[in-house]
Amino acid sequence: MLQSQLFTKTSKENPKDEVSLNAQLLIRAGFVDKEMAGVYSYLPLGLRVLNKIKNIIRAEMNAIGGQEILMPALHPKENYEKTGRWNTIDVLFKIDGAEGKKYALGSTHEEIVTPLVKKFANSYKDLPVAVYQIQDKFRNEPRAKSGLLRGREFSMKDLYSFHKTEADLDDYYEKSKIAYFNVYRRCGLGELTHVVFASGGVFSKYSHEFQTITAYGEDTVYLCQKCGVGINKEIISEQKTCPECGGKDFTEEKAIEVGNIFKLKTKFSDSFDYKFVDENGKKQPVLMGCYGIGPSRVLGTVVEVSHDDCGIIWPEEIAPFQVHLISLGDDVKIEAEKIYQQLIKKGVEVLWDDRDLQAGAKFADSDLIGIPKRIVISKKTLADNSVEVKMRNNDQTELVAINKL
Amino acid sequence: MLQSQLFTKTSKENPKDEVSLNAQLLIRAGFVDKEMAGVYSYLPLGLRVLNKIKNIIRAEMNAIGGQEILMPALHPKENYEKTGRWNTIDVLFKIDGAEGKKYALGSTHEEIVTPLVKKFANSYKDLPVAVYQIQDKFRNEPRAKSGLLRGREFSMKDLYSFHKTEADLDDYYEKSKIAYFNVYRRCGLGELTHVVFASGGVFSKYSHEFQTITAYGEDTVYLCQKCGVGINKEIISEQKTCPECGGKDFTEEKAIEVGNIFKLKTKFSDSFDYKFVDENGKKQPVLMGCYGIGPSRVLGTVVEVSHDDCGIIWPEEIAPFQVHLISLGDDVKIEAEKIYQQLIKKGVEVLWDDRDLQAGAKFADSDLIGIPKRIVISKKTLADNSVEVKMRNNDQTELVAINKL
Repeated sequence: MLQSQLFTKTSKENPKDEVSLNAQLLIRAGFVDKEMAGVYSYLPLGLRVLNKIKNIIRAEMNAIGGQEILMPALHPKENYEKTGRWNTIDVLFKIDGAEGKKYALGSTHEEIVTPLVKKFANSYKDLPVAVYQIQDKFRNEPRAKSGLLRGREFSMKDLYSFHKTEADLDDYYEKSKIAYFNVYRRCGLGELTHVVFASGGVFSKYSHEFQTITAYGEDTVYLCQKCGVGINKEIISEQKTCPECGGKDFTEEKAIEVGNIFKLKTKFSDSFDYKFVDENGKKQPVLMGCYGIGPSRVLGTVVEVSHDDCGIIWPEEIAPFQVHLISLGDDVKIEAEKIYQQLIKKGVEVLWDDRDLQAGAKFADSDLIGIPKRIVISKKTLADNSVEVKMRNNDQTELVAINKL
Repeated sequence: MLQSQLFTKTSKENPKDEVSLNAQLLIRAGFVDKEMAGVYSYLPLGLRVLNKIKNIIRAEMNAIGGQEILMPALHPKENYEKTGRWNTIDVLFKIDGAEGKKYALGSTHEEIVTPLVKKFANSYKDLPVAVYQIQDKFRNEPRAKSGLLRGREFSMKDLYSFHKTEADLDDYYEKSKIAYFNVYRRCGLGELTHVVFASGGVFSKYSHEFQTITAYGEDTVYLCQKCGVGINKEIISEQKTCPECGGKDFTEEKAIEVGNIFKLKTKFSDSFDYKFVDENGKKQPVLMGCYGIGPSRVLGTVVEVSHDDCGIIWPEEIAPFQVHLISLGDDVKIEAEKIYQQLIKKGVEVLWDDRDLQAGAKFADSDLIGIPKRIVISKKTLADNSVEVKMRNNDQTELVAINKL
């Protein structure tokens, strides 16, 4: 893409009404625009990153047998009356519709997915089933000051699994952990992210969170020094040993929750009287699990943990472009165009800064936007039939012959 | 994909609460599930079709310089106070949020996109700009009985263009018509879809609708017998000649509106005091156009115009799969698997009906689901080293040697 065609611009000033670092950098670099607290628009650069994160999640959910669907945001009140959650989900947006109808805006989708899957999977032959969607969720948050980390409207991947037996649910639950770590690794969060024991509610002893360690996290977690697994505040106040290995030494860390998984068991299948007919013709309760990752929250978290004073440092696989080509001066435009076309032909995603600006301004924009590889072509490099190559996460520059690019 | 793995099932019964043909067929074939009137979930087959339609639209919008963004569904009341539309959009869902905040759910996005683009494009050098999104919209419809044709929640592609001069807006507007017809052609609606003159409101004489002719359409249009262009009810009551060619003979037809384009001119830029600085340093009003196509409505329209008594007939480019491979009996499963793998290797999208069902049930499902090409392998065809090939829109079957597939 030609940077001269991009309608967004970078800004040197931090937005006045943002206290979170992720939103400050993303707004300054032109990735998102703030509509109001907790509600953002994704601009061309930001949408590219968001879609890459969604596609990574999609691939990993497909790999564990997830079937993608798309459920609505508008939910009928009746479904919440069956689960008793109309008044207990404190962040539920409620709407009065035409003809006395009452709706909720989905903050989660158990009330929709359970009766949906019940329509199709009623025999032991039909189970297990795993369905997921990537869709926008809504939460009536009283405070929303963490940029993309706590939105009133935010993207979510929610997968729901349906099983005949607890052993099968347990097995799928463990598989999902591996899939989740694949997602975090591919998004550049692998090393900083830990599985953390959390409360399991009425039906299960534990649920699990995925927490990315960073000094600016909203959550506090306790990492076992023996096995690296974490436990959250609620758990550590109840027990002093690691549920994974029995270890007794913990370090306290700040972290951002980038996912959670939960064994719902029969909590929602009971509400919707969802049973299956087993091999002996007997009705048995269906067991459920739910598994969430927020793509927009992952995006914000990456910015929190991967930046420097000059801007964002995108991990390779989710960067808006792989290469930032910068041409300095009109003299090198023809040669720059050739390199641009050659890289595109090879399938490389390139943002070409073809604007009439000084080198300093272009370099500052490039650092702020944070594309992994910068390629500079100037009169000077061209004299050597070369370009200057620099990685965003490294200060070293290297002259590379154009024919070896 | 293996049909045995698909969690949805077809149904012989029409859903009791659906009067619209598109929803009846799509629900019976397992493409969508009805959550409530005007609100549907997209199941794996339906989501594949919806995404193909969205990707066609995306490609055609990119081709006319559209830059994709993603705006929120949650809008602040303040923006509607500037345009005066808080109380004039009769289908606007309104929400009371935390701390006395009031929101609308977006039924259109002029209130969001105008101040957004204003932040970036302020000089004559920055214009024209065209941005679009593909996103879910909400309308508090009192009646929603037309399946996917009139939703309370529905997908929409909305593009907004910003110009320095009326000539430039006019030029882009004409370009958009060509792009729209590319979309309809690729979705199989090209021959039935006409551009139709409609009222232009205060700022323009005309706007334009794209109307697909079908006996079950909600709209009435009048097609000029001379040039094929249509005019809608409002226009024909005001004038008796074709605005395009002056023709005087019209045929009355029923139609479904599958898109509309509108010259907004300064209607919204005035509300948000959005001006640009021209070549002489003088502030000038920005001129806007808006351009809408609903992917979910296009999907419903295709079903309305392309089906028979047995089910849906998908046009090639938006079919959920290109080939429906049907294996009859366990004896041919190994050979069927080979064909399945070979087709996938060649990049063909295949749904393989590997279920243990009778031929009749499989053929009925295949007709209902409507994949363009059916390939049947049975003991009988295998004796000839062949498969039976049949197109969904044609009754003829043909024996084709497996090595010539």
